[in-house]
Amino acid sequence: MTTYKLLLLPGDGIGPEVMSEVEKVVGWLKRAGLADFETERDLVGGAAIDVHGKPLADETLARADAADAILLGAVGGPKWNGVPYDIRPEAGLLRLRKDLGLFANLRPAICYPALADASALKRELVEGLDIMIVRELTGGVYFGEPKEITTLDDGSKRAVDTQVYTTAEIERIAHVAFDLAQKRSGRVASAEKNNVMKTGVLWKEVVTRVHAEHYAQVELEHVLADNCAMQLVRRPKQFDVLVTDNLFGDVLSDVAAMLTGSLGMLPSASLGAVDARGTRKALYEPVHGSAPDIAGKGFANPIAMIGSLAMCLRYSFGLGEAADLVEGAITRALAAGARTRDIVGEGQTPISTAEMGDAILREL
Amino acid sequence: MTTYKLLLLPGDGIGPEVMSEVEKVVGWLKRAGLADFETERDLVGGAAIDVHGKPLADETLARADAADAILLGAVGGPKWNGVPYDIRPEAGLLRLRKDLGLFANLRPAICYPALADASALKRELVEGLDIMIVRELTGGVYFGEPKEITTLDDGSKRAVDTQVYTTAEIERIAHVAFDLAQKRSGRVASAEKNNVMKTGVLWKEVVTRVHAEHYAQVELEHVLADNCAMQLVRRPKQFDVLVTDNLFGDVLSDVAAMLTGSLGMLPSASLGAVDARGTRKALYEPVHGSAPDIAGKGFANPIAMIGSLAMCLRYSFGLGEAADLVEGAITRALAAGARTRDIVGEGQTPISTAEMGDAILREL
Ligand SMILES: CC(C)[C@H](C(=O)O)[C@@H](O)C(=O)O
Ligand SMILES: CC(C)[C@H](C(=O)O)[C@@H](O)C(=O)O
Repeated sequence: MTTYKLLLLPGDGIGPEVMSEVEKVVGWLKRAGLADFETERDLVGGAAIDVHGKPLADETLARADAADAILLGAVGGPKWNGVPYDIRPEAGLLRLRKDLGLFANLRPAICYPALADASALKRELVEGLDIMIVRELTGGVYFGEPKEITTLDDGSKRAVDTQVYTTAEIERIAHVAFDLAQKRSGRVASAEKNNVMKTGVLWKEVVTRVHAEHYAQVELEHVLADNCAMQLVRRPKQFDVLVTDNLFGDVLSDVAAMLTGSLGMLPSASLGAVDARGTRKALYEPVHGSAPDIAGKGFANPIAMIGSLAMCLRYSFGLGEAADLVEGAITRALAAGARTRDIVGEGQTPISTAEMGDAILREL
Repeated sequence: MTTYKLLLLPGDGIGPEVMSEVEKVVGWLKRAGLADFETERDLVGGAAIDVHGKPLADETLARADAADAILLGAVGGPKWNGVPYDIRPEAGLLRLRKDLGLFANLRPAICYPALADASALKRELVEGLDIMIVRELTGGVYFGEPKEITTLDDGSKRAVDTQVYTTAEIERIAHVAFDLAQKRSGRVASAEKNNVMKTGVLWKEVVTRVHAEHYAQVELEHVLADNCAMQLVRRPKQFDVLVTDNLFGDVLSDVAAMLTGSLGMLPSASLGAVDARGTRKALYEPVHGSAPDIAGKGFANPIAMIGSLAMCLRYSFGLGEAADLVEGAITRALAAGARTRDIVGEGQTPISTAEMGDAILREL
């Protein structure tokens, strides 16, 4: 049996608590003989600043590069508000994404039936919701240069961020979206602001061409990003695969996640290009943040993190059956009434992070 | 009595139909002796392209500059999809905003009690909702240079947009937001992505300083734009005044508008700086677009456009009482059951654009 090298980067806030629950599941997968892992733990974000003075040590990046997959908790928190911009906690995560070439961020927004009532939206609008947001993750305004603040002669300041996209960057993310759509409903919506942004013009042009040349059987719709945000609230089930740039993807995926009423439940995958050996770099993390306000209290929901492990089994290791087992156990634990505080309904008693992990293990 | 010069720019799609209803109300205000107007009509957007070959003729800009206020319908539509980028319909609107210095875009998101059920959100989350989004409108990625697509040696392309903000630009929009908050609940939320963007870092810094120096009694909260989008869906009533940049404002104001369930109902104001005579340039327009699919059918809801006139009376002419009369008539017409198609409930019969205009006139 192949032994997979898994790097665990719990990070900050609730990251370590939810990662501990993943370790239980990893232990079970080993004992059950379903997969073999060699796991390492390392630091990222504020936790790395505290030890190394920067949010991603070079050794950690080297380990990440050597790993078969990375599981990350979350980064950031008020403790590090005062650190210089270049070494803020988020910079560690951004460097991992950029230096490992993790250009394709897959963010499923799925509404679990047991939780449909937790959504702010009316039940009938979100019940059965299953959107896959494909967000470009290594380009756009996140990394374009110049990105700087300069001081003008009169002492006032001028800040600049630059959004850059090339044909090649758009092509490869378009392929990811269309390939996914072929395995799903066969529908892709592409969101940009071509009426205001030149990157939007190029985005639309390239997506249109990739579609015409390779995926004529997929249904493609172009939608302006502002209208897309609106449509996500109005009638979310009209979307299946939604492809967009780094910044719009950041906002739209958060809107989509919130629709499901269960932010603490949603995993994500960040994937690199497929190399000559047929493998690709990959990082898996919950959509939620580090939630410093509830860190250490045992309130956090570990399902997004455990779901990230399931995505890892499926996308990185081809272990679809093991992934199904883990996801099935999550669904059954929920159906049996297990609820952390973020998803507790009227008349239900919340359980702790560790109890939720145990409830899932019992179902395995 | 002062005679106000009002420039009407109906634009494209449903723009002309909804503008006709405004003209009825303007006629009534004159007849009732409440205000005197000199109105002119001119072209913008696709309608101007068809006649002048560009979306805003120089004479129209001169007229806009000379007017006391501008009412605009909407611009754009598939008919002009093929025109060169620099003369697309939206460029007419963007030039009006930029050349007239209309830097402050006020977008109220109000949930009308009679329409709370039309929202995708649960009634209790949106009933009584009253948010004022203050969007910076003449800076950011909309106008920064370079903004271009270049062809590389290998024939592929590279597109660039540039987001620029200066201290002065952020200061003046912050003042608008804090001044408004003082007349409202005394709370401001400021949204940016300082964890990724340098313009976000400067934005937060300047808003924090303006607050400390001039508005210590206002409550200020900083929120990341992605989280803000999420919170708007999760618990919208936590916000009162929300100040943000041009691009985030575009997306967040659309989300907020959609929450109210009545996009066809929401007006907006775009204001310039107050000059030596105490007046300011101003343009009023609905938040909704040109809706080419329903144009000419009499389905459009004229309330956002008539509400834009009411905002104009209040903000540009100091005619608060006349504005109250118009807004009161809208509320009563709705309470009496008048519904265009976009807001029709179960068991109700929709009326046409003109019938809605007449229903409002009857209440006046
Ligand atoms: C933490 C932050 C830098 C990050 C982003 O903006 O990409 C986060 O919001 C996300 O969506 O993963
Ligand atoms: C029509 C378009 C250029 C415009 C914008 O992006 O500002 C519109 O979406 C708006 O919000 O007023």
